[in-house]
Amino acid sequence: MEKGSLPRGRGKPRDENLRETILLASSELLLEKGFRHFTIEGVAARSKASKVTIYKWWPSKGSLALDGYVHTITESIAFPETAWPRQDIERQLSSLITRLTTTPAGRAILELIGAAQEDADLKRELCARYIEPRRQIAAAAFARLLGWDPIEKKDALHAVTDQVYGAIYNRLLFGLTPLDDHFARELVAFWVPPNPNL
Amino acid sequence: MEKGSLPRGRGKPRDENLRETILLASSELLLEKGFRHFTIEGVAARSKASKVTIYKWWPSKGSLALDGYVHTITESIAFPETAWPRQDIERQLSSLITRLTTTPAGRAILELIGAAQEDADLKRELCARYIEPRRQIAAAAFARLLGWDPIEKKDALHAVTDQVYGAIYNRLLFGLTPLDDHFARELVAFWVPPNPNL
Repeated sequence: MEKGSLPRGRGKPRDENLRETILLASSELLLEKGFRHFTIEGVAARSKASKVTIYKWWPSKGSLALDGYVHTITESIAFPETAWPRQDIERQLSSLITRLTTTPAGRAILELIGAAQEDADLKRELCARYIEPRRQIAAAAFARLLGWDPIEKKDALHAVTDQVYGAIYNRLLFGLTPLDDHFARELVAFWVPPNPNL
Repeated sequence: MEKGSLPRGRGKPRDENLRETILLASSELLLEKGFRHFTIEGVAARSKASKVTIYKWWPSKGSLALDGYVHTITESIAFPETAWPRQDIERQLSSLITRLTTTPAGRAILELIGAAQEDADLKRELCARYIEPRRQIAAAAFARLLGWDPIEKKDALHAVTDQVYGAIYNRLLFGLTPLDDHFARELVAFWVPPNPNL
């Protein structure tokens, strides 16, 4: 019996486990092979899920690859939430830069961004599944750093975060250097100069 | 007799004219067809130059398309150099945004950036022929705006310009809005708040 045709009554936990297994397989395949060689068949084989099941949850190869990417990167680029928002952001930017420059995640996201420029659906998925949610989280962190009201200053916060992350992605997309811990701290320092008493 | 085999002694002006003709054909073809359907054969046909001649000056399709892009965009995104550096930069950013969002140049550069993510040679050419030269020009303009020494503060100027242009390209790459004149002025205002007396 195909997993994809399991009666819905069999319950959520099983579905959740299967979903998790598929996401893990998707992220592994994406990081190993890159987006160019990423296929729904490959994820089905690796996760032992049927293609029918996969298509039930993901409308396209791109949406599955993107969720796989989000699955593999989210934890490592979370914003710590301590009493020191500056340090929280510096750490988040450093983690992001490290992941992008020293692990296969960098190649994966560049390939996804690249492919999205020729594929309007993929661009929409990229924005909806990765960019837009991360942008909201980053805006909230910068609101804490700058002491700005997150709702009233929403547009300005997006302009700030688009500049900070835009600089990082620009360097990655065009192969510009340096793109390292020091650059992470430098970026933050433009927005909140370091306290000379600390 | 093939144009590509003209004896070199026939003089520079002729070469320069031919080069100009090829660049114009290249930019027209890129903007009409997009990078995906851009070919050296197509440029040869349109410019009436031989492929041998084209290959004499451009090592690859990517390098020719990039120089075609630079040829078509450079004038419209020049930095005015008046006594008002703020206005110069606002105008330049506005022109760039207008070109990217309302003309085929936007699609062309997105396709080139996209294709470069799967093609290391194209990424190098993109950086060498377009990004790096523009980055130097922008850094010089921001040095005037901020009153910074362009040599001493070179790295900081690149960090500023990568943020400003990174924000613009991020919005374009991910389909984020707004990306308009107002955003151009908003970006500049982060770096030099407007003079309330003006």
